[in-house]
Amino acid sequence: MRATVLHGPGDIRLEQRPDPTITAPTDAVVRIAASCVCGSDLWPYRGIESISQPIPMGHEYVGVVDAVGSDVRKIKPGQFVVGSFFASDNTCEICRAGYQSSCLQREYMGNLGAQAELLRVPLADGTLVATPEVPDEDLIPSLLMASDVLGTGWFGAASADIRPGKSVVVVGDGAVGLFAVLAARRFGAERIIVMSRHADRQKLALAHGATEVVTERGDDGVARIRDLTDGLGVHSAVEAVGTQESMLQAIRSTRPSGHVGFVGAPHGVTLSGHELFYSHVHLHGGPAPVRRFLPELIDLIFSRSIDPSKIVDLTLPLDQVAEAYSAMHERRAVKAVLLP
Amino acid sequence: MRATVLHGPGDIRLEQRPDPTITAPTDAVVRIAASCVCGSDLWPYRGIESISQPIPMGHEYVGVVDAVGSDVRKIKPGQFVVGSFFASDNTCEICRAGYQSSCLQREYMGNLGAQAELLRVPLADGTLVATPEVPDEDLIPSLLMASDVLGTGWFGAASADIRPGKSVVVVGDGAVGLFAVLAARRFGAERIIVMSRHADRQKLALAHGATEVVTERGDDGVARIRDLTDGLGVHSAVEAVGTQESMLQAIRSTRPSGHVGFVGAPHGVTLSGHELFYSHVHLHGGPAPVRRFLPELIDLIFSRSIDPSKIVDLTLPLDQVAEAYSAMHERRAVKAVLLP
Repeated sequence: MRATVLHGPGDIRLEQRPDPTITAPTDAVVRIAASCVCGSDLWPYRGIESISQPIPMGHEYVGVVDAVGSDVRKIKPGQFVVGSFFASDNTCEICRAGYQSSCLQREYMGNLGAQAELLRVPLADGTLVATPEVPDEDLIPSLLMASDVLGTGWFGAASADIRPGKSVVVVGDGAVGLFAVLAARRFGAERIIVMSRHADRQKLALAHGATEVVTERGDDGVARIRDLTDGLGVHSAVEAVGTQESMLQAIRSTRPSGHVGFVGAPHGVTLSGHELFYSHVHLHGGPAPVRRFLPELIDLIFSRSIDPSKIVDLTLPLDQVAEAYSAMHERRAVKAVLLP
Repeated sequence: MRATVLHGPGDIRLEQRPDPTITAPTDAVVRIAASCVCGSDLWPYRGIESISQPIPMGHEYVGVVDAVGSDVRKIKPGQFVVGSFFASDNTCEICRAGYQSSCLQREYMGNLGAQAELLRVPLADGTLVATPEVPDEDLIPSLLMASDVLGTGWFGAASADIRPGKSVVVVGDGAVGLFAVLAARRFGAERIIVMSRHADRQKLALAHGATEVVTERGDDGVARIRDLTDGLGVHSAVEAVGTQESMLQAIRSTRPSGHVGFVGAPHGVTLSGHELFYSHVHLHGGPAPVRRFLPELIDLIFSRSIDPSKIVDLTLPLDQVAEAYSAMHERRAVKAVLLP
């Protein structure tokens, strides 16, 4: 099959690799209907995360089950499925608490490489959720968003304890930030402030339910948020970038008693215990347990209550994967989808 | 009046100072019935927090209202009152959210010096809670504990989201840690593990409701907690020390999805965003909004449902304040009470 492999910074290639097979009785093999490039794929692509050998890429996927192992009970060949970017058994105590991305048996799907024609999915019964029927073609990009960025936005909003009538700031205008805006709206927030400097993304944020845009950053950004909230700061902040600046922006924009949900994978972030202590904020986040939200998100998409495909602004065949990375890297695309 | 002043590391003195007077119409002056030495007083006493000039000391107090300003409506002269270590108006939006120690008008009581005969209390109607009647003498030490350490233990337990049937670790066996144990028991925790190496404090912790004692520290301590919890870690941890080691111990002892409440004022603590992210814990804490808990704590003490005076193992007249500090510093006393 054809599969995407990163060889070094900026060196992304589509290659022939052996077809994946069932290696454990709980595995499934999925024929990919669509995959995509994630903001987090750019960390190694840009060389910020270094790699010691060529690695398969991609962890967002939807497709049709091709084969299942002998212990797979619920998932059947022929079903259309959405999976999350961590494989999880969905039965251990941590999964039952809703933290499937910390499952005792978790496996990172990126190591298996979803930007390909076929994908082996471990713990298929726990990891995959079948859609009620084979979806209309136009729903496929939306379902694909549920595999990571939509679920991550949802987890960010849940971690920030967003509630009806309250104020929210979203730091980050990438796919996850935009979906945190969408989630904040669904959760009933009254004011949803997005921090963004890019006209196209501001527009998307407003289309997803943002009520205000703040273009300032750092201390100026914080001052602006405080101005907008009677000097108090917001009730909830979602951090969807992962840098030191964005993290501090989220914490400092939040009032004492407020909640900061952080879902941008931190790179070089260190927090002062002293500052956190006196901030009086609640802090929670981590790799999103997307599996927790999949059934709800699939329902919302199938009932056409939400349309996460709005953010997809580039769709390419798999053999143009290098161009998809390049467009994401250069911010020419918010979200690039790959079709096999 | 006589009042306690710190002149430099280890140099604590009882001195004659002018009697405090009403300076704002919202002030009260309280004749101190009892005050005490707090673990946090030891940071400047030990020179870990440096001071640039002699400072008044003490922020835990109970006593009888001596005088009130013209705008004080609820608090009356002659009432026996308990106050918290931050003055707060109890009416601003932050106070109404239960975070009186981040009140928009807050004032740190330590700057006014409660280890004295008289104390000016700003924002008296917001800060002070009158007891239902003048308490029996034996209840005074317990009410004094409510002024800070008991309320701080309570906030630690609330921040750690301690729930019936769950497991808890308390890092720290000082007054706050011991009261976090007491709170954990009241909140219905099933397993309450205290980390302690001191026989006398282990005994107190068991008397307050601890079910297990762990003597190991650092990585060994974490490994022991994981051993005791099927490798998962506890549901809730209360950090009641404020050092880097104790903070990491609390975070690393907690399972993904769990809650860490941190109430030890951090000194030199820095946290890795990466570690926090992958820990999947909830983190919350800060200077305890003791005022939130005072009515409940006073009720529990008056109904003799709890007896926080158990931890008081040294009672001295105010003019022996230097010995009280020395005993706390050398860990000869868990909690030293000063009587005027």
